[in-house]
Amino acid sequence: MDPDAVAKAFVEHYYSTFDSNRAGLVSLYQEGSMLTFEGQKIQGSQNIVAKLTSLPFQQCKHNITTVDCQPSGPANGMLVFVSGNLQLAGEQHALKFSQMFHLVSNQGNYYVFNDIFRLNYA
Amino acid sequence: MDPDAVAKAFVEHYYSTFDSNRAGLVSLYQEGSMLTFEGQKIQGSQNIVAKLTSLPFQQCKHNITTVDCQPSGPANGMLVFVSGNLQLAGEQHALKFSQMFHLVSNQGNYYVFNDIFRLNYA
Repeated sequence: MDPDAVAKAFVEHYYSTFDSNRAGLVSLYQEGSMLTFEGQKIQGSQNIVAKLTSLPFQQCKHNITTVDCQPSGPANGMLVFVSGNLQLAGEQHALKFSQMFHLVSNQGNYYVFNDIFRLNYA
Repeated sequence: MDPDAVAKAFVEHYYSTFDSNRAGLVSLYQEGSMLTFEGQKIQGSQNIVAKLTSLPFQQCKHNITTVDCQPSGPANGMLVFVSGNLQLAGEQHALKFSQMFHLVSNQGNYYVFNDIFRLNYA
């Protein structure tokens, strides 16, 4: 399968789930997964989703500007690099962000092994 | 060795080499390495450095804002995620950028297997 198509489909699925049902992201991570969110490291799917669902905003909308992907090496992994902006309900200005995912294949299904998120302050 | 210390040392070495002797970056890549630069994919150390040395500016200075790192999986790799700004000689405003590296260990020495660079336009 075309890696760019896989990356694009993953990105659309990830952010539409984030924006509509953040708790549903739990199925995209596993126990060994790690999120670094604005410098804070969190490991394990339950802890990661606890962090994401506790962020101090309810409604949000991610708008994606760029998606780049590369194979990550011999183990069938894929690196996905995203830039975009995040619109929070009630806020006038969107926040710019960058995020990278390392997707690892587990019997044909990808899950997120690494996730690093940063806001890009103006 | 502390992964955060390795990541920080790599980032300092990479950008000081970029800013002082771009051609010297060739030793940090190998034949299987891939760079995606503003959406353009380039493979192999020689091709990557040919791209970097042909960028339409001579003097530049990278200023780093954040460095995040995570182990990339079982193969002793490391993901390094950088944000910062790039000041070009003669330009009034710095350009914001994000960049990720996947460092892979080859007999104890790290080289860059994956490199994805994006400017973050305001």
